[in-house]
Amino acid sequence: MNAAYIKPFIQGIRSVFGTMVNLEVAIGTPTIKSEPLSTYDVSGVIGISGEVVGSIVLSFPAETAQQIVARFSGEECDVTSPDFADAVGELVNMVSGAGKADLPHKGASISCPSVVVGKNHRIATGHETPCVVVPCKTECGQFVIEIALKEATVGAAAA
Amino acid sequence: MNAAYIKPFIQGIRSVFGTMVNLEVAIGTPTIKSEPLSTYDVSGVIGISGEVVGSIVLSFPAETAQQIVARFSGEECDVTSPDFADAVGELVNMVSGAGKADLPHKGASISCPSVVVGKNHRIATGHETPCVVVPCKTECGQFVIEIALKEATVGAAAA
Repeated sequence: MNAAYIKPFIQGIRSVFGTMVNLEVAIGTPTIKSEPLSTYDVSGVIGISGEVVGSIVLSFPAETAQQIVARFSGEECDVTSPDFADAVGELVNMVSGAGKADLPHKGASISCPSVVVGKNHRIATGHETPCVVVPCKTECGQFVIEIALKEATVGAAAA
Repeated sequence: MNAAYIKPFIQGIRSVFGTMVNLEVAIGTPTIKSEPLSTYDVSGVIGISGEVVGSIVLSFPAETAQQIVARFSGEECDVTSPDFADAVGELVNMVSGAGKADLPHKGASISCPSVVVGKNHRIATGHETPCVVVPCKTECGQFVIEIALKEATVGAAAA
């Protein structure tokens, strides 16, 4: 995948977590995701469409997500509460919005977030869209951002 | 939510499942989703952005998803296989694409699908986007389509 698709979202993670969660993020080595081998407990998913199409996923272990949401929203929430899902959705929304703004293609827009809560779920992207997984290490624990993006086929952006 | 946002996707379910899965779908009464009370094992998620923003989710019990994928792709797949995720992703892609084409707003585009596999997961949409759940009954079992859509705020479509 074009590195110009990855860097904006890594920068988005750093800036959103730095300013909104007051949390420093150590970025690990990005790898191509060939199979959804890892499992997580909480995932925020957002779609991107237009000149580039794909999805951005932030996936967390439950305990890490709870700590991050507590720092972000200023209060402890149970993972099953609507406030918890709203907070995770808002985080993926901000990271995706920040990343999208720095993509080389300007004609892309982001969808509304969906938040998955379920112990040990896996998330797969269709094999036609390359997906890069970037491990993120923080004092609240590790999580990943998955960036699955490709250029839209001609005509699809306006379709 | 505007009924004009719901009907195209119900029609999409009927036509895609009728032609591609050879499966008649009885559509139940749509309800507003206030909390993600139900759990599912397999979900296909796709984002919509542009003049309308939101997401479309198809959620299945594992056994129903396996039966539907077998009819759709012509072969049995394990729920953990990449082919299974591809098939579920393709189904939500086709239903969303068919529905999008009949939306009153023409400037909307769909993202690539993400497929969640995990026993008893829940999917939440942010409280700012109304979400309608439509139960679908088939001879392979029941599943739901969730339609969460709202008009984009001014300027967001081009952002």
